[in-house]
Amino acid sequence: MSSETANEDCLGWAARDASGVLSPYVFSRRALRSRDVSIKITHCGVCYADVVWTRNKHGDSKYPLVPGHEIAGIVKGVGSDVLRFKVGDHVGVGTYVNSCQDCDYCNDGQEVHCVKGSVYTFNGVDVDGTITKGGYSSSIVVHERYCFMIPKDYPLDSAGPLLCAGITVYAPMMRHKMNQPGKSLGVIGLGGLGHLAVKFGKAFGLNVTILSTSIAKKEEALTLLGADKFVLSSDQEQMMALAKSFDFIVDTASGDHPFDPYMSLLKTAGVLVLVGFPNEVKFSPASLNLGMRTISGSVTGGTKEIEEMINFCASHRIYPTIEVIPIQYANDALERLIKRDVKYRFVIDIENSLK
Amino acid sequence: MSSETANEDCLGWAARDASGVLSPYVFSRRALRSRDVSIKITHCGVCYADVVWTRNKHGDSKYPLVPGHEIAGIVKGVGSDVLRFKVGDHVGVGTYVNSCQDCDYCNDGQEVHCVKGSVYTFNGVDVDGTITKGGYSSSIVVHERYCFMIPKDYPLDSAGPLLCAGITVYAPMMRHKMNQPGKSLGVIGLGGLGHLAVKFGKAFGLNVTILSTSIAKKEEALTLLGADKFVLSSDQEQMMALAKSFDFIVDTASGDHPFDPYMSLLKTAGVLVLVGFPNEVKFSPASLNLGMRTISGSVTGGTKEIEEMINFCASHRIYPTIEVIPIQYANDALERLIKRDVKYRFVIDIENSLK
Repeated sequence: MSSETANEDCLGWAARDASGVLSPYVFSRRALRSRDVSIKITHCGVCYADVVWTRNKHGDSKYPLVPGHEIAGIVKGVGSDVLRFKVGDHVGVGTYVNSCQDCDYCNDGQEVHCVKGSVYTFNGVDVDGTITKGGYSSSIVVHERYCFMIPKDYPLDSAGPLLCAGITVYAPMMRHKMNQPGKSLGVIGLGGLGHLAVKFGKAFGLNVTILSTSIAKKEEALTLLGADKFVLSSDQEQMMALAKSFDFIVDTASGDHPFDPYMSLLKTAGVLVLVGFPNEVKFSPASLNLGMRTISGSVTGGTKEIEEMINFCASHRIYPTIEVIPIQYANDALERLIKRDVKYRFVIDIENSLK
Repeated sequence: MSSETANEDCLGWAARDASGVLSPYVFSRRALRSRDVSIKITHCGVCYADVVWTRNKHGDSKYPLVPGHEIAGIVKGVGSDVLRFKVGDHVGVGTYVNSCQDCDYCNDGQEVHCVKGSVYTFNGVDVDGTITKGGYSSSIVVHERYCFMIPKDYPLDSAGPLLCAGITVYAPMMRHKMNQPGKSLGVIGLGGLGHLAVKFGKAFGLNVTILSTSIAKKEEALTLLGADKFVLSSDQEQMMALAKSFDFIVDTASGDHPFDPYMSLLKTAGVLVLVGFPNEVKFSPASLNLGMRTISGSVTGGTKEIEEMINFCASHRIYPTIEVIPIQYANDALERLIKRDVKYRFVIDIENSLK
């Protein structure tokens, strides 16, 4: 069914300046192009990127700025040439909504590494020059390439966080072969990304140890998330006992932290994947050389990987642990996110609160 | 032929204290055990490790200290159970002379990563408690496992540097699949390790760019070493032109240097292998994350890899570019090494000068 019509009003919440305070804001979504999908947004996850850009931490914020790139919703219209979606489908949109669609990376389903740069879902400059606006809004229009089918039996509120937090840990875990049952995984940090790394790790059959700075998270980590072990990273004795014991570490911490103590926990040829954004990465070359260890970076994933991850989560019944909030709570949620006071991802109930 | 006899006097040059000054020193080599090989040393390469330990840079030097772990020579005796060598064979000994011979790494030919620690060729504590003494000496006795056949048509003076400098770059290049013709390689630093990385790179069919701080090395790098390109790392314009152009970088620099400028030269998913020992490794997480890049460490290699490398060098006629010196020049050579005034490896002519 085609519905190529005029631009459409959209209600969102936007930050107007570097204070980052969000308030209602009406803007326009583009008319459907032939391969576009129009989506009624039902939910949007709250990612730390929303803090970064609403508050202009990188100095490149373009106001009014509508954040949100963990989008879940229902298709309400499709362009004339759309093949993969129809009205009523449940879908998700992640951290990017366009790319050149022509380079080797795009052709390989690795659009996030497009040579011309992928277009971020919010605060990005699209190919036509418009500034993209994110999922703290009632609807979005996206080329079907950057839209992902959510199985009908997968809750839409849980789907949102998969699109950024989920793929950010899933993609490097797969790339570095962390899906080998019986191997040992350390997870640094237990926020939106870390708690999903634990869930993926258990689904892959790994022995999972959480390395955390907060003892308060221990009981839930073991019972609710199913980790095998919880170690306070400040406890030197426990850390020493883990020396050379991990095949892999997923480091989700964006606060500054030392690397040598964690790298000493890797076995020979072990791999630490960095997905957080601390201010710097600093370590002794001996931490890397003497055990031929590896540090590798990653950022979200390509469309092929995102599809694969969603299907993996659906078939293995992996759901983010979320706190559902109304849009009116968004400013408080961002404050709590800064204080790391969230278990483990806020999801905005757009459908029922944004009116 | 077996020659299990008494301990044997050996003439070497040793440092007596942290001044690092070397002078003649007579000590004893152990009697042959059943699987030992006794080697008349003909040549020994001069590695920066010789500076580090003769001068007690790590605070763990045990004097008198006989340095040298790039040993080449001729078998002069074998224990009763030695299978792989006979008197007259040309052989080499590298950076370690023992290991537990029982752990997973040893069983896999990765003795350098032995769980009990490999025993270094000099200044190491052997299993029997003796302190090992290196190749600045007339002979050495080694278990055959840590001894490598050098083909008769491969010059013994060229063989020495393969045993540390050569394997240190060869092993990680193979491990990270840098032997794929047509790919692009950057080499940071043009000393003993770097010049061999260039030669291996060309033998693998790579497009090799040298990234150097010294323009004086340019012409020889292109003509003698056969690099495709030479770029002065301080030339920002040339560096910018190389952005995202390398599949791999081998970083051999042990002086402190920034990492972000070099990492920006890696393509998406590119790999930088660190084999040097600067004081620290420091970079921005974006340098790693945004292009899902990797930094990986390495230190020499296992016995299987060393054998493979020697045979590769012999069949591809890869020879280190060396300056042969008498043992009497060793102190000057170490001074020149500190000043990086060597093209590209000193090799001591033990056979003709140590008497």
